[in-house]
Amino acid sequence: MKMIIAVVQDKDSNRLSEALVKENIRATKLASTGGFLKSGNTTFLIGVRDDQVDSVLKLVKENCQSRKQMMAPMSSMGGNADSYVPYPVEVEVGGATVFILPIDRFEQF
Amino acid sequence: MKMIIAVVQDKDSNRLSEALVKENIRATKLASTGGFLKSGNTTFLIGVRDDQVDSVLKLVKENCQSRKQMMAPMSSMGGNADSYVPYPVEVEVGGATVFILPIDRFEQF
Amino acid sequence: MKMIIAVVQDKDSNRLSEALVKENIRATKLASTGGFLKSGNTTFLIGVRDDQVDSVLKLVKENCQSRKQMMAPMSSMGGNADSYVPYPVEVEVGGATVFILPIDRFEQF
Ligand code: NI
Ligand code: NI
Ligand code: NI
Repeated sequence: MKMIIAVVQDKDSNRLSEALVKENIRATKLASTGGFLKSGNTTFLIGVRDDQVDSVLKLVKENCQSRKQMMAPMSSMGGNADSYVPYPVEVEVGGATVFILPIDRFEQF
Repeated sequence: MKMIIAVVQDKDSNRLSEALVKENIRATKLASTGGFLKSGNTTFLIGVRDDQVDSVLKLVKENCQSRKQMMAPMSSMGGNADSYVPYPVEVEVGGATVFILPIDRFEQF
Repeated sequence: MKMIIAVVQDKDSNRLSEALVKENIRATKLASTGGFLKSGNTTFLIGVRDDQVDSVLKLVKENCQSRKQMMAPMSSMGGNADSYVPYPVEVEVGGATVFILPIDRFEQF
């Protein structure tokens, strides 16, 4: 068995959760924060059989991959009129960091 | 050494905590949520010597094992009178999922 | 690669975080509580190359090591005058528990 530890952005967390439930894969979710990003993220702990690892990685990639997104113009709160950008801007969202660790033993009570 | 990762229901968490303290076993607790269950659970990280694994598993089993419990009749909040069940019902509570991972090295500062 | 799981006291958490960022090492932080200590602590998940383990351990030691600190006299809230200590007392603060686990595989999306 393997323990998949996946750190994903909060905005992708529900989507990944639902995708895992659909494939009948149990995950435990922990609220986390990143060292670089100030924004919150979610850490998934997913214990799976060795032959399930690749399909879980595929689900993480499909639902959380780093991607460009157009963001509607918006003045920053409390900012002055000079910082207002009057056209949509492209921003990077999502992204996932995934570690796969060996499991010696698994028990369910 | 081994890292025991035990996911248990919140309602069993304090009892397991106290049982571990009594046996002088240190645990770190993380608030977590499950992919299937909407209700909160607690993830225990327990680093132990190889020869302590079985006694920790025994404590988890004793304090968190899935079991039937009678629940007093209760109408659901905001529900109508039709959904009121006028007799105790048996519900399943507890349960634990436990992963045992190898540890390469341990340090304390 | 290795997964470093470091449990440190909340009061040292920001300092460790900043030290890691400065060395360009990514960490995921989880709010946690300890079995013995009632006070909150922070669990760092740090995935690194094998040759980075020792420098991360050095950072944890430098920023979180258990140490004595003088605490200004203070009467406990709601305590009576008898329990007031009219001189500074030495208390133990900090400390870190660190586990290093093997990683089979690492992916970034
Ligand atoms: Ni395996
Ligand atoms: Ni060992
Ligand atoms: Ni390695």
